[in-house]
Amino acid sequence: MPRIVVIPSFMLESGAQLRDVPVAYSAWGRLNEEGTNAVVVGHSLTSDTDAAGWWRGCIGPGAVLDTDRYFVVCPNVIGSPYGTISPVSRDPETGKLYGPDLPQATVRDTVALHKALLDRLGVRSVAFAIGGSMGGMQVLEWAFYGDYIRGLIPIGVGGEHSAWCIAWSEAQREAIIRDPAWKGGRYLPGQQPSDGLAIARMMAMISYRSASSFRSRFHRTRRNGQADAMFNVSSYLHHHGNKLVRRFDANCYVYLTRLMDSHDVARGRGEYREVLKSIRQPVLIIGIESDLLYTLGEQEELATHIPNATLAVMKEAHGHDTFLIEVDTLAWHIREWTSRIDSQ
Amino acid sequence: MPRIVVIPSFMLESGAQLRDVPVAYSAWGRLNEEGTNAVVVGHSLTSDTDAAGWWRGCIGPGAVLDTDRYFVVCPNVIGSPYGTISPVSRDPETGKLYGPDLPQATVRDTVALHKALLDRLGVRSVAFAIGGSMGGMQVLEWAFYGDYIRGLIPIGVGGEHSAWCIAWSEAQREAIIRDPAWKGGRYLPGQQPSDGLAIARMMAMISYRSASSFRSRFHRTRRNGQADAMFNVSSYLHHHGNKLVRRFDANCYVYLTRLMDSHDVARGRGEYREVLKSIRQPVLIIGIESDLLYTLGEQEELATHIPNATLAVMKEAHGHDTFLIEVDTLAWHIREWTSRIDSQ
Repeated sequence: MPRIVVIPSFMLESGAQLRDVPVAYSAWGRLNEEGTNAVVVGHSLTSDTDAAGWWRGCIGPGAVLDTDRYFVVCPNVIGSPYGTISPVSRDPETGKLYGPDLPQATVRDTVALHKALLDRLGVRSVAFAIGGSMGGMQVLEWAFYGDYIRGLIPIGVGGEHSAWCIAWSEAQREAIIRDPAWKGGRYLPGQQPSDGLAIARMMAMISYRSASSFRSRFHRTRRNGQADAMFNVSSYLHHHGNKLVRRFDANCYVYLTRLMDSHDVARGRGEYREVLKSIRQPVLIIGIESDLLYTLGEQEELATHIPNATLAVMKEAHGHDTFLIEVDTLAWHIREWTSRIDSQ
Repeated sequence: MPRIVVIPSFMLESGAQLRDVPVAYSAWGRLNEEGTNAVVVGHSLTSDTDAAGWWRGCIGPGAVLDTDRYFVVCPNVIGSPYGTISPVSRDPETGKLYGPDLPQATVRDTVALHKALLDRLGVRSVAFAIGGSMGGMQVLEWAFYGDYIRGLIPIGVGGEHSAWCIAWSEAQREAIIRDPAWKGGRYLPGQQPSDGLAIARMMAMISYRSASSFRSRFHRTRRNGQADAMFNVSSYLHHHGNKLVRRFDANCYVYLTRLMDSHDVARGRGEYREVLKSIRQPVLIIGIESDLLYTLGEQEELATHIPNATLAVMKEAHGHDTFLIEVDTLAWHIREWTSRIDSQ
């Protein structure tokens, strides 16, 4: 179970003021006396703070995020139903669930809130921030905290949410919003637009994989091998669609996809390439060759413009989810880079 | 406007017997006395028989499908709302619309029905069959009509509908079927599940393009350049979603995507590679490097196993729709191949 810290007051970029803001996090290892051995892990869209669970084998004694050495913290994002303030939290002013009325936050807001959390935990500086997908967006925003952050490992992400990714988000949101059970987001608990959310998830599950991975896993096989039965790939999508409905909230899904659409490291900071050039930390950029959503070109772009960047490319064919599946390859790249950074 | 021929009796692969079956087609040019100068054009999922409209510049005197030379026929597919028997046709037995009760046809069925049409038109043999996407599936099925078909040009398609494409179909169908207005397909005319159909189309529009094409066209621009307005790429998806609702029928969409899922040249014919090896006609396989749906590997597979095959690759970045956009490049490949075939 995550721990919760309450931040008494927090202002979003939009100017909206939030009060008594819960921030959930999980942590492993111990903060050293100087407060300098933290590693911050950013989670992806529907994940939670249990990074040791979803990044199996990556956190622990001797693991790539070595808890004998690091104090590993995975904070929950604003808008996620897993503990931090979100549409399923209660507004302290009214005692009611925020629902669709929670002011929209950005990736930048969530990182600012996580900074407030780290301050509370006594973290004086961070060895590196790491994360894939939405987690990678957070990593890139951490770049703008100067000496506080000593390294960055963004995975499967670009410097801005592309038109392509916005299109995927929009189609998924529409599936939710056009479900009559949506009711402008003012549905009662237990009566959420489950069809819309399931459809959004089905779309998303396609975007996380690749033609090649579906081919090798499912080909044209059908359930129980029967000629008229549902294709196994369809059954897989139904399973994941219905499964998300049981563990996620439609308002949170809409909110978080909008938060991701806000991702643009250059917004308000200057010209895009110049902003990337201004990043001072060593950065390990991990790209995935088969990634349909955050194409390799986006990581190459980051590596071209960020001065102290290393690009590692994962060649596996699973698509975007490769970073959650091929954890040994991922760990190898991270170890190689951290040992090089440490020896500098 | 398409012309209509009525086939008195037609049996589907499933054994279902259809009576008084309308088959719509458009035609350009003249059939020669021997009945041997026909070219058959297969249309894609939501297209109609007006190939001269949607394949702009490809059909006409001196065009790549030269009407001074060829009798060009584009027949409408079973299940499409544009004239051939479909869920929006009336069942002659009951006088009512078929709706969801039209027995499911396959790609193979639609080609057999088109053969009956060509017989009626006096076509004795076909110079070549050509088509992209669902049209390409029809082309590959024409291979099994022996000497009747002298050449094949499948574009942006594989020998079987992949798990990947089935997944896209399934998510789109679910968007329609989970719309409460679906009512098991028994909605009244004018009361179709328009939200579900629009969402399906939004998904499909993503699948027809590429990250690169969306980036160059939309980037992160917003409507009227206003900071809080909708992203232009979202507006594009909404536009196309709502536009399809005005010209298409949800039962037809579900039916046709199932018809596409049936595509498998090897079904009932033997081992997949052996079936491809049995194709005797010269085949020009046109692949699209940026095609997300029917990946280039699928065309390479066809070219590897079909004995008399030529592979041409379109390098443009528009995605699957490249074959409808870069018609000059397409025409160049076709001319090059036809002139070579003609001189043999």
